[in-house]
Amino acid sequence: MSAMSNVIVPERQLFDLAAAALAAGGMRAGDAELTARVLVLADMFGIHTHGISRVSQYLDRVRLGGIDARAEVETTRVAPGLALVDGRNGIGPLVGMIGLQAAMEGAKQVGIGAAFVRGSNHFGPIVPYAFLAAQEGCASIIASNATTTIAPWGGRDTRVGNNPLGIGVPNPGGDPIILDMAMSVVARAKIRNLLEKGERMPEGWAADRHGKPTTDPREGLAGFLLPVGGHKGYGLAVMVDLMAGLLSGAAFLTQVQAWDKNPGVPQNLGHFFILIDTGKLGSASWLHERMEAFQAILHETPAADPAAPVIAPGEREMKVYARSVREGVTVSRTDYEALSGNA
Amino acid sequence: MSAMSNVIVPERQLFDLAAAALAAGGMRAGDAELTARVLVLADMFGIHTHGISRVSQYLDRVRLGGIDARAEVETTRVAPGLALVDGRNGIGPLVGMIGLQAAMEGAKQVGIGAAFVRGSNHFGPIVPYAFLAAQEGCASIIASNATTTIAPWGGRDTRVGNNPLGIGVPNPGGDPIILDMAMSVVARAKIRNLLEKGERMPEGWAADRHGKPTTDPREGLAGFLLPVGGHKGYGLAVMVDLMAGLLSGAAFLTQVQAWDKNPGVPQNLGHFFILIDTGKLGSASWLHERMEAFQAILHETPAADPAAPVIAPGEREMKVYARSVREGVTVSRTDYEALSGNA
Repeated sequence: MSAMSNVIVPERQLFDLAAAALAAGGMRAGDAELTARVLVLADMFGIHTHGISRVSQYLDRVRLGGIDARAEVETTRVAPGLALVDGRNGIGPLVGMIGLQAAMEGAKQVGIGAAFVRGSNHFGPIVPYAFLAAQEGCASIIASNATTTIAPWGGRDTRVGNNPLGIGVPNPGGDPIILDMAMSVVARAKIRNLLEKGERMPEGWAADRHGKPTTDPREGLAGFLLPVGGHKGYGLAVMVDLMAGLLSGAAFLTQVQAWDKNPGVPQNLGHFFILIDTGKLGSASWLHERMEAFQAILHETPAADPAAPVIAPGEREMKVYARSVREGVTVSRTDYEALSGNA
Repeated sequence: MSAMSNVIVPERQLFDLAAAALAAGGMRAGDAELTARVLVLADMFGIHTHGISRVSQYLDRVRLGGIDARAEVETTRVAPGLALVDGRNGIGPLVGMIGLQAAMEGAKQVGIGAAFVRGSNHFGPIVPYAFLAAQEGCASIIASNATTTIAPWGGRDTRVGNNPLGIGVPNPGGDPIILDMAMSVVARAKIRNLLEKGERMPEGWAADRHGKPTTDPREGLAGFLLPVGGHKGYGLAVMVDLMAGLLSGAAFLTQVQAWDKNPGVPQNLGHFFILIDTGKLGSASWLHERMEAFQAILHETPAADPAAPVIAPGEREMKVYARSVREGVTVSRTDYEALSGNA
């Protein structure tokens, strides 16, 4: 058996396994199911770094006292369209799902709803939340702050997180378009891969610890990630932290604890969810026609490389999702067996 | 008299002149004042490319029949938090101000409000709108679509606009933090400057008409701008168009007419305004303390170049604004005299 080999598991079976593992780790049954929903969706979209592989990491932190598996997440509706959610240091995807639901209640009630979430932890990728919103006809803007890995533009010290930002627009009867991006040019994992292969980095990926540009993966990993578009990506990372961290009452910038360095200390991460009920803007058929026309314009773009046609954001993930529904969810045997061991 | 020389004009005088010029060009007095408010604020922030210098351009298009100076902008409230605005091809900053007001009404009523705007034109920079929102205690996410100048990632044909996106967070009693960014690595004007000076472009700014990277400014101008972070900036530009163009009922992607090529044809641009009443999330003093702490963490970052300390997004514009309030607004003599000639 190779560590790289994969297994294909029916969605329901993977969901039941993940929920059982999370319940065995201390979560209430309903909370474990909400959490499993996000993680299994991540795997269904092919985002395996943020899928069921995270279960054992989350539960390790529960055992160390860094996360409370039985947190009673608290939602306060401060206005018809606005909710404050205190995750009380619960497991991230659980807190995220409760934030999503609070924002959706607002959207269904008054057309647009937001939830500002504090006291949370790593909440998984954004695609599952934006996808669930789209299934209910809601456009979404969703983001989180994160441990600091980026230096302010012109600085030489990491003070901003590589904060993920997602935007989704539904397409009734078709594929939604969903963007889920972090602010760095590349992820740290990509630099680690080059280091392992003994290759140099392209310019612009990372700076060394003195803030100087470097093409040496080792120096880049000891330094910091560079944001997309320099001051633009820095600015976007700051604005996400202001909305997700500062306005929610969570930790922000260097106040955010690194979970890998201090696994026993609560991170107090912040997220925000803004949902818009597109049903109030026009009919489902109106939206579907416009979404199809929009995607057609993108798809008909002459490609620089004919073998690589132009696609819309998230289109690759939507294809993997359709296959996961049809044929079952592909996960690594290692992750699957770890999950089975926990369940 | 050099074309490069500047004049310093008191805010009130510049505002009256701009409003008079716009009224002389056919706008109703109240509409001219709303429009002048945006353009004069742009100059007060030092964004002269989007300030009173635009008045004669807007009025030229009015004379060509491309914009309707007397458009009766129509606001339809489709839900307590949600408005659809039809600009009816009115002057952009007027339509923008009405969109901002509609979103603010929703925010004051139910905590968060949005306006989706169609039938509009170039609405100026985003900073003035985000600043006015912040003065009322509102955080904001504001964006517009635009004429296509960017190719989809992997494509070799411009199909997406260099869509501006702005995010602002208020700071009661202090400076708000406001980001106003477009999606390209640099603006076309910056490439034109290099062409005039006979210099090469850095890699990554633009591609030639075949979609190949180029460092020749002439080839770059004949080709297209490259988005920040490659597929990430492309994705962000697409999502802005989906929200600002598609959901609002406006034109999107290649449906957007280029105003410089077809000045007599309505553009049907789209914008969106999302405003959040931060007063519902916490007190003004709570927010002020957090904003000051946030800015302090950024400012205390060791700088790569000690002569260039780290700043927050929009901080430079806020400094120029304070000086404009104190000493008057600096504008070029050429723009000032053109405005006086129109008034």
